[in-house]
Amino acid sequence: MSLSIFEASIPVFLRAFDNFSAILEKGETFAQVKGIDPATLVEARLAPDMLSLAGQVQRASDTAKFCAARLTATQGPSFEDNEASFAELHARIAKTVAYLKGLDAASFDGAEIRQIVLKRRQGEVTLDGRGYLFTFALPNFFFHVTTGYDILRHKGVPVGKSDFLGPL
Amino acid sequence: MSLSIFEASIPVFLRAFDNFSAILEKGETFAQVKGIDPATLVEARLAPDMLSLAGQVQRASDTAKFCAARLTATQGPSFEDNEASFAELHARIAKTVAYLKGLDAASFDGAEIRQIVLKRRQGEVTLDGRGYLFTFALPNFFFHVTTGYDILRHKGVPVGKSDFLGPL
Repeated sequence: MSLSIFEASIPVFLRAFDNFSAILEKGETFAQVKGIDPATLVEARLAPDMLSLAGQVQRASDTAKFCAARLTATQGPSFEDNEASFAELHARIAKTVAYLKGLDAASFDGAEIRQIVLKRRQGEVTLDGRGYLFTFALPNFFFHVTTGYDILRHKGVPVGKSDFLGPL
Repeated sequence: MSLSIFEASIPVFLRAFDNFSAILEKGETFAQVKGIDPATLVEARLAPDMLSLAGQVQRASDTAKFCAARLTATQGPSFEDNEASFAELHARIAKTVAYLKGLDAASFDGAEIRQIVLKRRQGEVTLDGRGYLFTFALPNFFFHVTTGYDILRHKGVPVGKSDFLGPL
């Protein structure tokens, strides 16, 4: 018995995007109920030099997209990072999910040992697929989804851990 | 080629705890430099009804500990949740890391299909080991580590993504 690198990545992203979408919906509803301009939540951040909610959605999208593309050695879609409303954030997630759902599990065969080159500030770093997934892609992905949740929670949106984890 | 459920869990936790410890150190240094009582950071939270930094460390510790215990069908150590200083948070992480490092990779053999029963508010939920790891343990673990980071970042501690991801 063992795990595949496909099941350790794509379904994990898809599930988190489902939950993130539901959390964003609660944010939008909260803005309506409280009479807040929804754009203030989309632009909200936890520190002045930290990414906004929109930025967290964009980076979660990119992390999942690049992970899938790198593990399959294919080219993913390109997105503009111009989302400025809840509707546009939902659309960004939907585009990402559509891309991920279109990938064949078989195209991940051998990805555990595929050499993946990351361009970092300090230069290029080469990892194999398993190292890339577990030390970069999954932590980075959950970082952005969690921080998106934390931004809304900090702003008073009534979300809880069960929204983050989704139905078990 | 495939992945083992051991490598998808224990080394991932250990790496994140290393990074979390370094982030906590930066928080403590920040308090010293700014003349802030460190306890205000240990007790800081992003919303009044959300867990404090201490709570995030405790839940990250428990999530990793229970994951290891459930996947190996053994009993993990019991911790009191009484940490109130940076030194105690470091000790909590150290105890958790020592437990995780003492586990033999072979004891995870077959854990992918082990039936795991979670007690949730809505009742008991049964998952197999792979489902438990990917839908509950890993997301929940990264939720608490990220939220701990977010609390300190929100309070002005100079940490960045490279601290969260650690050296690649």
